[in-house]
Amino acid sequence: MEEKKRKLSMVVFSGDMDKLMAAFIIGTGAAASNMDVTMFFTFWGLRALKKPVNTGKGFFGKMLGLMYGGDIRKAGPSKFNFYGMGRWMFKKMMAGKGVLSMVEFRNLALELGIKFYPCSMSMDVLEIEDKDFIKEAQPSVGVGFFIAEALESQITLFI
Amino acid sequence: MEEKKRKLSMVVFSGDMDKLMAAFIIGTGAAASNMDVTMFFTFWGLRALKKPVNTGKGFFGKMLGLMYGGDIRKAGPSKFNFYGMGRWMFKKMMAGKGVLSMVEFRNLALELGIKFYPCSMSMDVLEIEDKDFIKEAQPSVGVGFFIAEALESQITLFI
Amino acid sequence: MEEKKRKLSMVVFSGDMDKLMAAFIIGTGAAASNMDVTMFFTFWGLRALKKPVNTGKGFFGKMLGLMYGGDIRKAGPSKFNFYGMGRWMFKKMMAGKGVLSMVEFRNLALELGIKFYPCSMSMDVLEIEDKDFIKEAQPSVGVGFFIAEALESQITLFI
Repeated sequence: MEEKKRKLSMVVFSGDMDKLMAAFIIGTGAAASNMDVTMFFTFWGLRALKKPVNTGKGFFGKMLGLMYGGDIRKAGPSKFNFYGMGRWMFKKMMAGKGVLSMVEFRNLALELGIKFYPCSMSMDVLEIEDKDFIKEAQPSVGVGFFIAEALESQITLFI
Repeated sequence: MEEKKRKLSMVVFSGDMDKLMAAFIIGTGAAASNMDVTMFFTFWGLRALKKPVNTGKGFFGKMLGLMYGGDIRKAGPSKFNFYGMGRWMFKKMMAGKGVLSMVEFRNLALELGIKFYPCSMSMDVLEIEDKDFIKEAQPSVGVGFFIAEALESQITLFI
Repeated sequence: MEEKKRKLSMVVFSGDMDKLMAAFIIGTGAAASNMDVTMFFTFWGLRALKKPVNTGKGFFGKMLGLMYGGDIRKAGPSKFNFYGMGRWMFKKMMAGKGVLSMVEFRNLALELGIKFYPCSMSMDVLEIEDKDFIKEAQPSVGVGFFIAEALESQITLFI
């Protein structure tokens, strides 16, 4: 009889490169340890799921586009405006050390069977639609879904 | 025989509008799923509990007042200084989409029986007193109280 | 027969003074409640483990040094660039209220038996070596180690 797998559920709220990186590292680490992993993307975290080319049509969608430039490849670390460093430095650092890029991490997560769920309320507020996301990011769900997943989880995190 | 309710305990550290919103959405979602919910407000999160009209009298209380303008209705999202957008945008977005305001969310949380506990050490450091908070935010407690609640919880988060 | 101690595991991602403070307060509170506590320091959080005098030699190590000025005593709160307040205010506030300093909190954590583990991947990317840390911060470990600790924990947090 197969034992039920243990589970990690996380809310990915941040859209900062360094925090997204931490979320993917923890998620893939758990999946590699034979756990089920649920990543619930909300608010700024939704950008991690967006397709490479996309601009929202509504006013707020456009504003979000301006703020974040569209997709995961453009994410900068959370401190970049403070110190004038930024995405470039992080990419350079990680490439130099053989660490995966954001897109590679996302692909690895999918290969390891990690489930991506976008938050439907955030999508509504930010005017993002299902078609704006990579096809693996579905279905969009409400907070009740996350709560149910978290209740079955041994590890819960808000990032 | 009644089954013991499952519990969610969270530390609400942030005073940013978007993170407070996420905290209340997760909290009310859990309460609506028939869970007990404990919200332990500390540092910047304490502002979510403040009465509408209030200014600290001490030096540091005043500084905090300047920084945060007093209460939950003035909270801006965590990115507002970066991009010149801010509270206005968020309020507009949420109102347009039928999402509750911060005060409505706080009231809903109370109606659903969520417990609000302010962190006594933070109150002391930031010169905030019990009387500065809405009456439901009590008693103020130490970190040991949070730990005890978290040990009885299936879901723990730091926001 | 002795009962197995309950455990708290946290990822300390932030290097901001206020969040580090929250991490140490929660950690020492749990340890004082007779729990085992594991603190896994990653990205910006690594600074909390650095020795007083230290400057990285590599390019990125130097940049990190510029950004963060080296060690835990220099950490400022997460809002300091927004409002021109900062470390000074926090130190003043905490000293005036009899709250421990960061170094005192770190020492208290060690006295209470809290385990500090630096994240080896972050160390590699940020060009920080074991010798840059206080001697209690070891061994450096990967994310799989954190996952294993978290699976044995009743409370898990990402700070």
